[in-house]
Amino acid sequence: MLLNQQYLFTPGPTPIPERVKLAMNQPMIGHRGQAFAQLLEEVSTRLMPIFGSKDPVLVLTGSGTSALEAAAANIIEENDPVVVIVTGAFGERFATICETFGATVYRLTIPWGEICTPDQLENFLHAHKDCKAVFATYCETSTGVLNPIKELGAVTKRITDALFIVDGVSCIGAVPVDMAAWNIDILVSGSQKALMLPPGLAFIAVNHIARERIQSCSSKRFYLDLNRYFASYDKEKSTPFTPAVSLIAGALEVCYMIEEEGLEQVIQRHQLLKTMVREGIKALELPLLVSDEHASPTVTSVKPLNGKANQIKKTLQDKYSITIAGGQKKLKGEIFRIGHMGYCTPFDILKVLTGLEMTIHTIEGRNVLGQATKKAEEVWREYV
Amino acid sequence: MLLNQQYLFTPGPTPIPERVKLAMNQPMIGHRGQAFAQLLEEVSTRLMPIFGSKDPVLVLTGSGTSALEAAAANIIEENDPVVVIVTGAFGERFATICETFGATVYRLTIPWGEICTPDQLENFLHAHKDCKAVFATYCETSTGVLNPIKELGAVTKRITDALFIVDGVSCIGAVPVDMAAWNIDILVSGSQKALMLPPGLAFIAVNHIARERIQSCSSKRFYLDLNRYFASYDKEKSTPFTPAVSLIAGALEVCYMIEEEGLEQVIQRHQLLKTMVREGIKALELPLLVSDEHASPTVTSVKPLNGKANQIKKTLQDKYSITIAGGQKKLKGEIFRIGHMGYCTPFDILKVLTGLEMTIHTIEGRNVLGQATKKAEEVWREYV
Repeated sequence: MLLNQQYLFTPGPTPIPERVKLAMNQPMIGHRGQAFAQLLEEVSTRLMPIFGSKDPVLVLTGSGTSALEAAAANIIEENDPVVVIVTGAFGERFATICETFGATVYRLTIPWGEICTPDQLENFLHAHKDCKAVFATYCETSTGVLNPIKELGAVTKRITDALFIVDGVSCIGAVPVDMAAWNIDILVSGSQKALMLPPGLAFIAVNHIARERIQSCSSKRFYLDLNRYFASYDKEKSTPFTPAVSLIAGALEVCYMIEEEGLEQVIQRHQLLKTMVREGIKALELPLLVSDEHASPTVTSVKPLNGKANQIKKTLQDKYSITIAGGQKKLKGEIFRIGHMGYCTPFDILKVLTGLEMTIHTIEGRNVLGQATKKAEEVWREYV
Repeated sequence: MLLNQQYLFTPGPTPIPERVKLAMNQPMIGHRGQAFAQLLEEVSTRLMPIFGSKDPVLVLTGSGTSALEAAAANIIEENDPVVVIVTGAFGERFATICETFGATVYRLTIPWGEICTPDQLENFLHAHKDCKAVFATYCETSTGVLNPIKELGAVTKRITDALFIVDGVSCIGAVPVDMAAWNIDILVSGSQKALMLPPGLAFIAVNHIARERIQSCSSKRFYLDLNRYFASYDKEKSTPFTPAVSLIAGALEVCYMIEEEGLEQVIQRHQLLKTMVREGIKALELPLLVSDEHASPTVTSVKPLNGKANQIKKTLQDKYSITIAGGQKKLKGEIFRIGHMGYCTPFDILKVLTGLEMTIHTIEGRNVLGQATKKAEEVWREYV
């Protein structure tokens, strides 16, 4: 191994900017004082445009899954019928959470690697008009599809009175979203993806319709009881339980960074990263799992022939210190996934593509050196 | 204000050592790789002596309260009778959590500022021999008492077949504990107290008896389902949901620090800090809420006459940049609390006592300058 630098390209956690680390290293403060109140209010408010929310974004101390659970457990009454769009492992997780908390779950199951189309949802909802909520995944991390949330929201509201609840964990901060215009009632994300923070925080934006439902919901919950978070925020701009103060200090720095680059620019950068990765992979003649049109700008799944995914992943790690992710559940061993979100530039994409070129050369004996990077560079050149 | 240094003396969060900050700033790693598996195993194993546990300590991403909920929600079946010893706000929180998850709760209520004696528990348990669990608080943060957990555990096991479940959030890492010898089945703590980390991690040690109960428990839970944590740890030394990687990296550094100082020495240091604070406060003729014998080595509650608690707290903050805590719930405005745990030395105690001397001088017009610090210095001199 050369100098022990490590290159992280998993779809979360993602690399942390130096200035965010510095912000997290400020002297610790108590969470019941004025300084913390000001910090939390700033973060909750500055996250609003990123979440396309008209309301301050609630901050939970937990994994992204804690906020998925909060989104379900705070609105589900025993035996409530709900629809869950399952386009991969995280849609399935949402369905399992809903079942755990007593809902009667109707899964709209889509083949992995494809999106749920508005027509598919429309047909499905005609048989479930009485459902209390429709759960969707914006970017399905396990496959890398980006579901058409705007259109799915419109269908949901046209056909049902259900809440539309969206898992945005692996894309919020890198994609456009507008809760009001897109009919999203609850939008969830985590800290360790496009938001450039270590894992440990979850974010949840709730509109007034969902908030009313939450207030009257009788389900059992305590740590993830959102009413407690609303009350503590409204009363003293704090959290009901000791929050991850240092990560929240980092979140403010992330908000500054996104404001400085400009949210529009951040979103465009992710489109560029996506296109560079995909054109580079195509130049290597490796099959992509998802079509260009339906692929997320944050994570790209590649499905090499002959089940070589794990060998590629291992070679990248062992020889080039590049960490990518494998497949999950039914795609285990079938695909590898490259995360390209958050603190990620075109140069980082060239890095991972270089590693892939050399890996393919080693494993398959095909001399593809320079091919992916050349293509990616052309994409970048055009963008600039 | 002089140079803007801030001095944190709340009973959590507590100051973070520089080397722990550096450890948390290592480049981010994925949580499904070998490096994280090794990190988590090291932390879970090295925490064992600190928790007096024969089993690796589970790491949750959440506030301390998330682990309190896990300790309750994973063992309570609907309508299970449980006993909760309530010596303050956190005992009451434990009771509320148990009720939330469907238990029939019998509170053994103790006046705030006093411990629960073994006799009190024995008398109470005679009427509740069939209870499924007894919940106790080791250090009750809201008052600063240290309950006699060893003796309470012995009583519990002599009279009942109940699990003995202990909240050690605000003292583990600063006090002795031996789960097997003390009959503790589940022991919970948080990162931001004696363990010198930012808030965001919770720890839970579970013995084999409790683990069996957890395996067969049918309650609804997902994010805090401990079976998922056991499975993920046993299978791949990971966590079921993306963990707070940077805080866990910090936790390993904390383990090293405690090993280097020696756990015995760490415990003795906290006894010294406690005695210095208490003798200093006595020299100022301020009434202590808790007797010497029953006071925790981690937090000291002071009950000044004429309800001056908030004025003292405010003056310390405004004039000397020293943050202490006020009272909670029924002690709000009645007491102030000084945290002295984790990354805290005798010099820190002299700092807060100095601030108190000057504050009392200002507020009450009594010239007590040098009195508390002299007394505390004498205590320290004797210890060395």
